[in-house]
Amino acid sequence: MIKTDILIIGAGPTGLFAVFEAGLLQLKCHLIDALPQAGGQCSEIYPKKPIYDIPGYPEVLAGDLVDNLMEQIKPFQPGFTLGERADTIEKLDDGTFIVTTNKGTKHHAPVVAIAGGLGSFEPRKPLLENLEKFEDNGVAYMIKEPEVYRDKKVLIAGGGDSALDWSIFLADVAKEVTLVHRRNEFRGALDSVEKVQQLKNEDKINLITPAEVVALKGESHLEKVTVKDTSTSEERNIDVDNFIPLFGLSPKLGPIGDWGLEIEKNAIKVDNTYDYQTNIPGIYAIGDVNTYPGKLKLILCGFHEATLMCQSAYQRINPDKKYVMKYTTVGGVTGFDGSKKEAPKAVVKAID
Amino acid sequence: MIKTDILIIGAGPTGLFAVFEAGLLQLKCHLIDALPQAGGQCSEIYPKKPIYDIPGYPEVLAGDLVDNLMEQIKPFQPGFTLGERADTIEKLDDGTFIVTTNKGTKHHAPVVAIAGGLGSFEPRKPLLENLEKFEDNGVAYMIKEPEVYRDKKVLIAGGGDSALDWSIFLADVAKEVTLVHRRNEFRGALDSVEKVQQLKNEDKINLITPAEVVALKGESHLEKVTVKDTSTSEERNIDVDNFIPLFGLSPKLGPIGDWGLEIEKNAIKVDNTYDYQTNIPGIYAIGDVNTYPGKLKLILCGFHEATLMCQSAYQRINPDKKYVMKYTTVGGVTGFDGSKKEAPKAVVKAID
Repeated sequence: MIKTDILIIGAGPTGLFAVFEAGLLQLKCHLIDALPQAGGQCSEIYPKKPIYDIPGYPEVLAGDLVDNLMEQIKPFQPGFTLGERADTIEKLDDGTFIVTTNKGTKHHAPVVAIAGGLGSFEPRKPLLENLEKFEDNGVAYMIKEPEVYRDKKVLIAGGGDSALDWSIFLADVAKEVTLVHRRNEFRGALDSVEKVQQLKNEDKINLITPAEVVALKGESHLEKVTVKDTSTSEERNIDVDNFIPLFGLSPKLGPIGDWGLEIEKNAIKVDNTYDYQTNIPGIYAIGDVNTYPGKLKLILCGFHEATLMCQSAYQRINPDKKYVMKYTTVGGVTGFDGSKKEAPKAVVKAID
Repeated sequence: MIKTDILIIGAGPTGLFAVFEAGLLQLKCHLIDALPQAGGQCSEIYPKKPIYDIPGYPEVLAGDLVDNLMEQIKPFQPGFTLGERADTIEKLDDGTFIVTTNKGTKHHAPVVAIAGGLGSFEPRKPLLENLEKFEDNGVAYMIKEPEVYRDKKVLIAGGGDSALDWSIFLADVAKEVTLVHRRNEFRGALDSVEKVQQLKNEDKINLITPAEVVALKGESHLEKVTVKDTSTSEERNIDVDNFIPLFGLSPKLGPIGDWGLEIEKNAIKVDNTYDYQTNIPGIYAIGDVNTYPGKLKLILCGFHEATLMCQSAYQRINPDKKYVMKYTTVGGVTGFDGSKKEAPKAVVKAID
């Protein structure tokens, strides 16, 4: 059982920044995310795209924003349960919560902050008869640990940035990389498309287009896929250890929708905009996942909501204490790891 | 008469960021500030101090944050009325406002956003009999344009960072710099204190401590000050063109307090936290100047408040239009100066 002060569901920018504000209040955080790494959409969907409306950044790449947030929260040593989806919640008699993931990991905390963005990102799956049989037995929809594919025969399907970028990456890791796409045209960053062309020319990627995977074969583990040329309808079997269809992720509110929270337009209604608490005391909703009149789904709004949530969480956890806010410029930042950052102190010194 | 869409009172971080969000909505802004430059406290009080709680910045100097915000809003060409305090407001029959400064500059806008921070920073003045007579005639409490002091004999009084830093700066500009402080000890950044010591050793700054200015003399313009040694009580006259007492600034809500807005604990109460409008429709209060339950006086909260305010201002100015938000990552940023920033577009390209 993982224990923490604030259990944050969703490790996107809003959830990450909540760790910082909680840390200033001496509260520890643990984050759960269905994606294999922190950063939410910013890391998974558009890490190389610029954002222009983060205050104080005329331009910042989404991936860099996440890196900066990770650096900012480092002193507060957040815990992470990644690649698992928060599935069920139970409220104990003492008002605390137990949240269990789809893989059975249990988390216990007095406060739960849902920072789930548009929901957990679920892969779009191809329609193949025995697909489920091979899930975790050769078929994966996200690459969590590239080393799993070292010296394997890997077949990737898809025509977007993920398919291009992982084909490029795995060309150096796997024994054999085959990229299958139903069109000849790929859609992605120009340099990715050009790099795949180059690797194909060098025989480091087998390219099969226009084509699609139509069958999976194997005893317990995947052994072969059948690929059909969509212009000639010819089929052939290819020996593979792994099949990775990368057809995009689509966000789903998912099991959180059944937690008894008030839902409106696929978002969680918050009771008020003073602390972003939901209809269940002790559960907060911050960032893109919440809704209230005038709500804007902007990262900068999530930062504000996370900050006010932490103040309220502090009062819930410490009902008898009064927190007096100190500006970081004045009081510095003292990490749970013993680190201390602070402004250089003024000296009082005679001039003679 | 200066005309604009949103008249922002206060050019601190919150007011500056409002220009960006307004710009995305095609609304023009003009800012009024009592200080001689943009940036509010960040520029005037602690430009060299680090802030640790700006989201995405593990550490940023206050002055750098202002520079970055100025860069971010540049495409939206804000106007500035600096060194003037917003004094009076008049609501016209058509619901628009005219705001007049203490120097008589008039501004006309359908929306007024007060982003006044802790108020306008008013200098602490020494108690000297004929001080007012010499204001703008040799006596100044803030340095707006250092060139004014070229080849002049300047006497600065004070023992903090402003007195130290301006003495250092003017040592290269003025004919003669005298620094008077009532103690021998100065309080400031170590390198500033050491630099003054060095300039004093090189006879580039005349240092008189412990001492204070006790009288001002001159026909219409200041000609002499009387400085009293506070240990011996000896007095002497010094020929000067300028006397600049730098005893700190203290924020005062000031004339805005008489505009008919609901005031609570020296801050403006906002009606709601959906758009931060005040009890007077069309006047908003954002950032440290406002109050509501759970209010935190943090820069990051001001950013959020500014953003929601702009949406509401847009509806007030364009009652019949519906604004559909576009993410900057998707839609880019199109400046009023014709500039365009946008994410590199994906290509659709065959690989053969």
